[in-house]
Amino acid sequence: MFNINNFLHLDALKPAVEWKGFPKYNFVGGHIDAESIPVQSIKDSLNKIILKEGKTLGKYGLESGPQGFLPLRKFISNQLKISAKINCSEREILVLSGSLQALDLVNQTFLRKGDTVIIEEENYGGTISRLKRLGVNMVGIPLEKDGMNLKILEQELNDLLKKEIIPRYIYTIPTIQNPTGTVMSVAKRKQLIKLSKKYQIPIFEDDCYADLLFEKERPPAIKSFDKEGYVTYCGSFSKSIAPALRVGYLIANWEVLSRILPYKTDAGSGSLEQMALAEFCKEYFNSHIKTLKIKLQKKSEAICNALDKYFGSSAEYKKPDGGIFVWVDMHKKVDTSRLYELALKDGVAINPGNEWSINKSGRHKMRLCFGNPSIKEIDEGIKRLAIICRKEFGIPTKIANL
Amino acid sequence: MFNINNFLHLDALKPAVEWKGFPKYNFVGGHIDAESIPVQSIKDSLNKIILKEGKTLGKYGLESGPQGFLPLRKFISNQLKISAKINCSEREILVLSGSLQALDLVNQTFLRKGDTVIIEEENYGGTISRLKRLGVNMVGIPLEKDGMNLKILEQELNDLLKKEIIPRYIYTIPTIQNPTGTVMSVAKRKQLIKLSKKYQIPIFEDDCYADLLFEKERPPAIKSFDKEGYVTYCGSFSKSIAPALRVGYLIANWEVLSRILPYKTDAGSGSLEQMALAEFCKEYFNSHIKTLKIKLQKKSEAICNALDKYFGSSAEYKKPDGGIFVWVDMHKKVDTSRLYELALKDGVAINPGNEWSINKSGRHKMRLCFGNPSIKEIDEGIKRLAIICRKEFGIPTKIANL
Repeated sequence: MFNINNFLHLDALKPAVEWKGFPKYNFVGGHIDAESIPVQSIKDSLNKIILKEGKTLGKYGLESGPQGFLPLRKFISNQLKISAKINCSEREILVLSGSLQALDLVNQTFLRKGDTVIIEEENYGGTISRLKRLGVNMVGIPLEKDGMNLKILEQELNDLLKKEIIPRYIYTIPTIQNPTGTVMSVAKRKQLIKLSKKYQIPIFEDDCYADLLFEKERPPAIKSFDKEGYVTYCGSFSKSIAPALRVGYLIANWEVLSRILPYKTDAGSGSLEQMALAEFCKEYFNSHIKTLKIKLQKKSEAICNALDKYFGSSAEYKKPDGGIFVWVDMHKKVDTSRLYELALKDGVAINPGNEWSINKSGRHKMRLCFGNPSIKEIDEGIKRLAIICRKEFGIPTKIANL
Repeated sequence: MFNINNFLHLDALKPAVEWKGFPKYNFVGGHIDAESIPVQSIKDSLNKIILKEGKTLGKYGLESGPQGFLPLRKFISNQLKISAKINCSEREILVLSGSLQALDLVNQTFLRKGDTVIIEEENYGGTISRLKRLGVNMVGIPLEKDGMNLKILEQELNDLLKKEIIPRYIYTIPTIQNPTGTVMSVAKRKQLIKLSKKYQIPIFEDDCYADLLFEKERPPAIKSFDKEGYVTYCGSFSKSIAPALRVGYLIANWEVLSRILPYKTDAGSGSLEQMALAEFCKEYFNSHIKTLKIKLQKKSEAICNALDKYFGSSAEYKKPDGGIFVWVDMHKKVDTSRLYELALKDGVAINPGNEWSINKSGRHKMRLCFGNPSIKEIDEGIKRLAIICRKEFGIPTKIANL
């Protein structure tokens, strides 16, 4: 038999585990529930656009070139003008196969092994794992209620300057930060741009959740304050419409975009997704988001209630302003990596904090996503999680109604 | 202004040139014409499947996990059993965002800078450019009428063995080899597997064009003779249905696939494409291929006629047995890279041979794709190309009817 081990390099990634279905209580990942998918309007949109544009499927890039389906780029440009105050033309947009491709392309362009980047110290697991894999040093900045601590950021920038280290970018998720849920204030956004210019370090702004603020008004993107091309911005439709629609986008000045685009070697992103979204969004995007947010807010309340009910004061969290997750700070006795293992065996999936943080406090924190389970499942799943946690760690010390 | 040049590494890729539309006479790329797109049946297929499966869009990977939409994997498994004699289960299939992703993932798994691979010395430009970019040494094997010269392959394998160099894979496009159009004989396929086992070197079989043999019967894939997991196989729907549908696939034993899958960091390939294809293929794949091949064969004849008519004996080629391109050997005076530049200015796009070959003969060869232009455009474009070529190189010495 062929033995692949003889052909793997020392830095080979660990083998995949075969997928056997989702856990019953799925509090991980950006999934949403079946009822939130606007099936009928996606179908109607596809019907319309396929008859109009289907014949262009014969060409790579349709008739739009490698930057993505032009009507979709037009929608993105118009929409972000209103929602995020970003002024950009279609030529400054690159449509991608999901915003994870944005991370990979920006990293391929800017980063090599041994480089240094600045990130919020509690951060999206996929960002941390990518940077680790690339052998990049991460300088973590703590978060305050209104986003990244900019005093500490400036200290770090000065320290790096003294050491003659040039960080390759400052990565931030300013709106509904993942996992903390914080929203960066407008004042800080403006200040961040100033620091970026002062220290001549670009910003990579990841704005995937910004459409999902429940009640607060969406703040202008950092990109909206950028007149000189310091910000590379990414967004996504996975969170606002459906995760399995693999469409995201990058926005940057053409001078920057033209250096990122050559790393996109997939001969274009999925055309049917791009076509469907272009047509769907034109008519339904804003009304769909409105409905979706109401559903998500109800689930957000359900998970907060369940945490209060079953964990009481042993689970601290900030009630989400939007999005699909809550970041929970457990008692210091609780090792969430261990909890993750035990819970998974019992059908409850959670994100252990140490995968979502580059500081040690991650050890007793966890991220819980609430987009996928029903309100009933949220209650059942959190109850089950509390029972498992109590059994292993003695936390919570008692569980109400049990 | 932010200056990205300060942040690029020495090995940065050259900037992209902004896309300004397709050239009038487009003899490059895997494009096909608008009339070959089965718009109505794609639409019908989408309608059916969206109503049935649309609600699963709420989950990453739908209900199929990271290896791709299960009904599509089932189709691939069944279809290849008949068409390529490959026996594989759905768990040995990984659906991808086009077969270029297959190249990238296999390369990420098997190759690091300084490694050596064996490839057919005239080869797909995208394969050569990827390997160059990775800093991988390419050992080229000449092609005969019935595929790779296996005597030379064995010599090279022995030479490498003596030098204690282990090639990481033998890459081959056995059926309608790109760009030469050769089809590897069944005897050679069996012999190649024997060599692979004898020298313990895996094979990477790229079978993207195999559905498009005009009249010859499709030979069993090399993979079909592989009982011990030496072959990793890739295929695509870009060539058989539409290039803008970005769906390809890898087939390998789970032991191999589980090492490749972790490099797929895009959270799944486009769902609508996968759904549309799963439904479409079930009903229409075979009849569609039949019609498409008739159209392509007519175009193949048209381009051969045009070459004869305008270039006469100064353009040598083998009449294609299938596929969408012809590999043309020009007089030694003709530098096709120069011809490419001149022709492009005049609206005629060709692939210069030195991008499609790792030996020097590529300099006076060119690849012409005929799937996209109409029969009229083929005639006009080749005529225009002959005029440009004659003006620059004196070849052809005269042009009939002019």
